[in-house]
Amino acid sequence: MSTIAEPINLFDFEAIAKERLPTEEYDYIAGGATDEISVDRNRRAYASWAFRPRVLRNVSALDLSTTVLGTKVNLPVLIAPCGGHKKAHPEGEFATFRAAAASGTIFAVSANASADFAELAKAASGRLWLQLYPFRDREITKDWLKRAKDLGYEAICVTLDSQWPPKRERNIRNNYGNRRGVNFSNRGAENSQRRGAHPGGGDPAATWKDLEWIKSIAGLPVVAKGIMTGEDVELCTEAGADGVIVSNHGGRHLDNTLATVEVLSEAVAAAKGKLEIYLDGGIRRGADVVKAIALGAKAVFIGRPLFWGLAVDGEKGVIRVLDILREEIEITMAKCGRPTVASIDATTIVKAPPL
Amino acid sequence: MSTIAEPINLFDFEAIAKERLPTEEYDYIAGGATDEISVDRNRRAYASWAFRPRVLRNVSALDLSTTVLGTKVNLPVLIAPCGGHKKAHPEGEFATFRAAAASGTIFAVSANASADFAELAKAASGRLWLQLYPFRDREITKDWLKRAKDLGYEAICVTLDSQWPPKRERNIRNNYGNRRGVNFSNRGAENSQRRGAHPGGGDPAATWKDLEWIKSIAGLPVVAKGIMTGEDVELCTEAGADGVIVSNHGGRHLDNTLATVEVLSEAVAAAKGKLEIYLDGGIRRGADVVKAIALGAKAVFIGRPLFWGLAVDGEKGVIRVLDILREEIEITMAKCGRPTVASIDATTIVKAPPL
Amino acid sequence: MSTIAEPINLFDFEAIAKERLPTEEYDYIAGGATDEISVDRNRRAYASWAFRPRVLRNVSALDLSTTVLGTKVNLPVLIAPCGGHKKAHPEGEFATFRAAAASGTIFAVSANASADFAELAKAASGRLWLQLYPFRDREITKDWLKRAKDLGYEAICVTLDSQWPPKRERNIRNNYGNRRGVNFSNRGAENSQRRGAHPGGGDPAATWKDLEWIKSIAGLPVVAKGIMTGEDVELCTEAGADGVIVSNHGGRHLDNTLATVEVLSEAVAAAKGKLEIYLDGGIRRGADVVKAIALGAKAVFIGRPLFWGLAVDGEKGVIRVLDILREEIEITMAKCGRPTVASIDATTIVKAPPL
Amino acid sequence: MSTIAEPINLFDFEAIAKERLPTEEYDYIAGGATDEISVDRNRRAYASWAFRPRVLRNVSALDLSTTVLGTKVNLPVLIAPCGGHKKAHPEGEFATFRAAAASGTIFAVSANASADFAELAKAASGRLWLQLYPFRDREITKDWLKRAKDLGYEAICVTLDSQWPPKRERNIRNNYGNRRGVNFSNRGAENSQRRGAHPGGGDPAATWKDLEWIKSIAGLPVVAKGIMTGEDVELCTEAGADGVIVSNHGGRHLDNTLATVEVLSEAVAAAKGKLEIYLDGGIRRGADVVKAIALGAKAVFIGRPLFWGLAVDGEKGVIRVLDILREEIEITMAKCGRPTVASIDATTIVKAPPL
Repeated sequence: MSTIAEPINLFDFEAIAKERLPTEEYDYIAGGATDEISVDRNRRAYASWAFRPRVLRNVSALDLSTTVLGTKVNLPVLIAPCGGHKKAHPEGEFATFRAAAASGTIFAVSANASADFAELAKAASGRLWLQLYPFRDREITKDWLKRAKDLGYEAICVTLDSQWPPKRERNIRNNYGNRRGVNFSNRGAENSQRRGAHPGGGDPAATWKDLEWIKSIAGLPVVAKGIMTGEDVELCTEAGADGVIVSNHGGRHLDNTLATVEVLSEAVAAAKGKLEIYLDGGIRRGADVVKAIALGAKAVFIGRPLFWGLAVDGEKGVIRVLDILREEIEITMAKCGRPTVASIDATTIVKAPPL
Repeated sequence: MSTIAEPINLFDFEAIAKERLPTEEYDYIAGGATDEISVDRNRRAYASWAFRPRVLRNVSALDLSTTVLGTKVNLPVLIAPCGGHKKAHPEGEFATFRAAAASGTIFAVSANASADFAELAKAASGRLWLQLYPFRDREITKDWLKRAKDLGYEAICVTLDSQWPPKRERNIRNNYGNRRGVNFSNRGAENSQRRGAHPGGGDPAATWKDLEWIKSIAGLPVVAKGIMTGEDVELCTEAGADGVIVSNHGGRHLDNTLATVEVLSEAVAAAKGKLEIYLDGGIRRGADVVKAIALGAKAVFIGRPLFWGLAVDGEKGVIRVLDILREEIEITMAKCGRPTVASIDATTIVKAPPL
Repeated sequence: MSTIAEPINLFDFEAIAKERLPTEEYDYIAGGATDEISVDRNRRAYASWAFRPRVLRNVSALDLSTTVLGTKVNLPVLIAPCGGHKKAHPEGEFATFRAAAASGTIFAVSANASADFAELAKAASGRLWLQLYPFRDREITKDWLKRAKDLGYEAICVTLDSQWPPKRERNIRNNYGNRRGVNFSNRGAENSQRRGAHPGGGDPAATWKDLEWIKSIAGLPVVAKGIMTGEDVELCTEAGADGVIVSNHGGRHLDNTLATVEVLSEAVAAAKGKLEIYLDGGIRRGADVVKAIALGAKAVFIGRPLFWGLAVDGEKGVIRVLDILREEIEITMAKCGRPTVASIDATTIVKAPPL
Repeated sequence: MSTIAEPINLFDFEAIAKERLPTEEYDYIAGGATDEISVDRNRRAYASWAFRPRVLRNVSALDLSTTVLGTKVNLPVLIAPCGGHKKAHPEGEFATFRAAAASGTIFAVSANASADFAELAKAASGRLWLQLYPFRDREITKDWLKRAKDLGYEAICVTLDSQWPPKRERNIRNNYGNRRGVNFSNRGAENSQRRGAHPGGGDPAATWKDLEWIKSIAGLPVVAKGIMTGEDVELCTEAGADGVIVSNHGGRHLDNTLATVEVLSEAVAAAKGKLEIYLDGGIRRGADVVKAIALGAKAVFIGRPLFWGLAVDGEKGVIRVLDILREEIEITMAKCGRPTVASIDATTIVKAPPL
């Protein structure tokens, strides 16, 4: 029985979800690599920027919509590709998809989804991206890309930071098998033929040629996920990517990185406007979203909060998570005198020195 | 039964008040927006400046008086406009007014006062400012401004940071209705006609033209409250304001701002001496007052401590709160070798780096 | 019954003393002004410098002696002037004097000593300074100065930071009368005639002329105590002082200053070699002594540890406190490759950034 | 009975070892000088650098090998010279030696080993360095150097930071005799003739001439251990040393130094490529190793973790400690896109500011 009557922020959602989920599942979702320094830093780093409130700028008509890869979303928050939504709710990705559609945003389906990405695409109306890895087997990649396009997926997200298995100590201590009870139906063929590499990840031998090749055959916009340096943003540009998600995989792969929001400016500068920069990692408040946009992100993605929403109330829970973020973004935009997403510029924030 | 026999500082006043007030009322007064980062930072930021004590400067005759808008106050501490003093004491604003008068300072009456501002003005001798918002209905504004001038109010304080309702999670969890038991008599007409905006706040569509208009018809000095940037200080100057209160509303509206004392220098620089700069937020010690003055504030306002004083002992409590601040200001001035408020200059303090 | 079998550092001495002393006496000695931020910072600031160990420099013959006002002391640690040693031990200043003499260092006797400074001078062989304030009554000052010189006191220490009474909240809460059980025999005449000023302190109307006058008639070296700025060091030089003790009175008078060790460099630079700079405040380890010397202090003074030594074991306790510091200074000098006090230069340390 | 079923990182090893070892032995190994500020800082300082992950660089074939003094080791982690391995396991240095050999790394035998260094060299195949001090008696040094070379020791490590006994308060409180139950057979002759100096350390009168002399007669590479400044690296170069271990003796000799990883860059710059720079201090994660290499270290040494491995499972425990580090180094190299040790350059990391 939860001690929180009604979740009013995303921390409440996590607290309730923690009570409801088996410990090992909660730990799998909440945890990260080794000492979880990056998990923590992703979150805490937002506090190192402060808002500069502005007054008397007519904020009676706020507009939270923005565009992502040229198409409109109702708010600058998308659903990050995360494996196995059924861990959190029996309806899994289907619930998530309906929630994203209802909220007017995009759902990026994971290569490790607990639902077949074809069935999912047919299950409801809404907007989808498909995430995959640089697989060892190019035939599987070709097949996925062709089907994704045919099924109406709008973009391909290629995750680049997961070619080597991480050390997640909570999972080791929990003796956690990360497929238990979850059907990773999409990965069957690829997984069975891979040897010695990260199950659920990509090919450690992959190079920039692989990304170029994916772009060349995808017939869809390609977004590179897991970029943390300006150098790699430049290489993404050269490889033909249309967007980059600045991400350290929620601190789940390599510990001891900076927070994603800390490297965002470097990424934005390196992009030189040639591709869109998004961000994930540590977003828990509307304030975080506005800070990321002020630093140059086109939009942000949420990962773990998606699971907390599912665990608390399935589709409705995810909708509520997005609603809370929307309300908090509205307050922040209004109080900073920024009636549109486009008006959230660099002067909206300032560094807050440690006290 | 309080565990503190006799309050000797403002923290004691808060501790005793917390024991005496209903939790939901205490939380309403003490709390702030979302994570209360700004509430905390407002307070803690003072510690990032240190005093530079000076010796042998003849401090036998200290003078704490200063001028505000050209008129003398006995100490550089004024009473900020805060709604509903009856939350803390049945005599509400009447008690506060008598205390301010007894202490030789100014009481800024809130638009959300739990007393009629006309009755209040007639109840005692003393000095008053009237606070209002950029109301949607200009007739109400005209009426208030005319009556204020007729009643002897000395200045108009226009609060600019409250056009959009904040998210105060303590209140949400306490299911707090912020009018309970309190008669916001002044706002009746305005509130009944407003739709979709912040009850108890201003018009989200207001612009700088509204402030110009208020100034043009007020016939009194106008002080803009809720300014946190140099840009807005400049716009206040252009709009004809006579003073600015650097304020983040005690961290009650937008979380994640800098502390008010941290943006004070920016505001003072932008004012270029054309208007007076005041500050509120986090003042709990005489030392804080002296630091704010050293950074260029003409005077400071106290908000929450006013309620703690009322809750502990009504009029006498507020007098004691001001007396404590006076004593602490005296010690600080004496030990810094600054016998007058005017002698508290920038060399009085230095940045104290984090250790 | 103490839980520490045998004190091995100055923190142990304090812990044992705390157990043995009445709470109100412990609080009087250990406490400071208002929030005790400066008490804490005085101590913690030492950690913001780190040693740069040097090797293979022949440290087989360490020499801890140095000179103070041209005369040799066996170690660069002197006894600060502190009132009422009988608070800690019935033998009071007599015990302290014997300990200082045995350790080859100087004891600065307080104007508020719990012993007559004439009797003290006659009681044992050893070296003494006499501390006084800029008294309101110049005749008393003349009398003290004449007697001090006749009695063999080697220097006069004039405390300049105590012309206004501080706010010490521990004492207020303890209803502490700071003379209880202690005979401040030296101050009798002066105290009885002072009105409205700090009992036990100096004249708030004093100016630099007073220090000049004291120097002009003292016939002894004059050391100014309680200086925290370069400006005041320069004024001390102009007034003819021979030395300056950088001190914030152990955080007991004005809170919210920098640590003494943080302003030491400013003081040393302002002295331009024309007078000696000493330091008190927060010294608890030999390492602190070496850091202060590396920053330019000629020697340091200990205050509170003196009381802990007295409370634990009277004369022997004070000797042990000094012995512990000596042993710790030796280790530090040896490991930094600095066999003499003169060889402890600025390259011995480096700033240690916050982690 | 340990509460940790199976150690999965070096912190677990310490936790289990702490349960198994007598408190006084644990304290001797884990503790450091005075306040243990440097013990703590050595560890915490690693967090002030963050990784810059790089993607798509083909990390399918990682090579952790590197060279030390021109010879190959399988991973850039060596065993630091530490006295008395029998404190942790009855097989003592013999177990350590077998573990180091099995892991393809070098074991530096301490002058205070609990085994005869000749017997040890004969007991197994593997690679050894011999550590000694600048002894007072040059004949002993000559004898050791000759025997070391004859026995196949590959290098001589001269510890330079231990000429003066430290103050280790845990040991004092535990009344710890640091030879109890351990046969320091190698030091017998030297120790019996030394007077007034650090038992188990070196000659406090030693100078750079002594290091030059050792190098001149050693007939083996000489590595200077205990260097913390650029100046001393330059002097090591002049004295003919082949390598330098940047070390503060694990915070066991002088407290209040910077962390070793914080002075690494200074040391590397001073070396100008003329000698190899190694590091010990605080290494507990593979990430720490990679950071040290990125800052210019050729390899690192582990000290305390060696004892935790021995205490948990003797030879197997040490092997497991090294295996864990290897796995963590692999993850870090893979995720930073650095397939070889040589490719770990300065761009691999960035300063992580305090939050």
